[in-house]
Amino acid sequence: MAGFRHVVIFRWNENATDERKRDLVERLTALPGAIPEIEDYHVGDDAGVNAGNFDFAVVADFADRDAYAVYRDHPVHRAVIDEYVTPILAERAAVQYEL
Amino acid sequence: MAGFRHVVIFRWNENATDERKRDLVERLTALPGAIPEIEDYHVGDDAGVNAGNFDFAVVADFADRDAYAVYRDHPVHRAVIDEYVTPILAERAAVQYEL
Repeated sequence: MAGFRHVVIFRWNENATDERKRDLVERLTALPGAIPEIEDYHVGDDAGVNAGNFDFAVVADFADRDAYAVYRDHPVHRAVIDEYVTPILAERAAVQYEL
Repeated sequence: MAGFRHVVIFRWNENATDERKRDLVERLTALPGAIPEIEDYHVGDDAGVNAGNFDFAVVADFADRDAYAVYRDHPVHRAVIDEYVTPILAERAAVQYEL
């Protein structure tokens, strides 16, 4: 398998209502329809199996790092970050790596 | 796609030499051969595209949360954590989610 993977994990703040978290998932899962560079995209709320976990994860796969950069900088993606992520964000951990 | 995904991101400490990081990747990539519950397994060093990133990520897919728990608690996996992760670990962020 070749490609380039973006992994990001979030911990939410006290403003992260269920409605806001649902709205975010809805907006994120619409991104593959708007940004054709996304080859695979899976987001999810933490399942609650382990104590100390963060709250939410996004794993997105691309053909290469240039395709990832298109996603990272895409105005539709930036709008989701500004309107739906930033207001509820406490902590963020990210890695991109070659597949 | 159904399944259960484990996502974990690490930041290494000052003891994380290139040799130790290489040894860790070697041990981790042997785990799918030892733990048949692992359906998909991709690890990688951060590509250095974005400032502020963590250093290393593991994304592992399983049939369900029980299969993930077998991996989490498997003695071969625990030995890799104890011997190769813990000595170089600064920070860890994890999420498990339903696919």
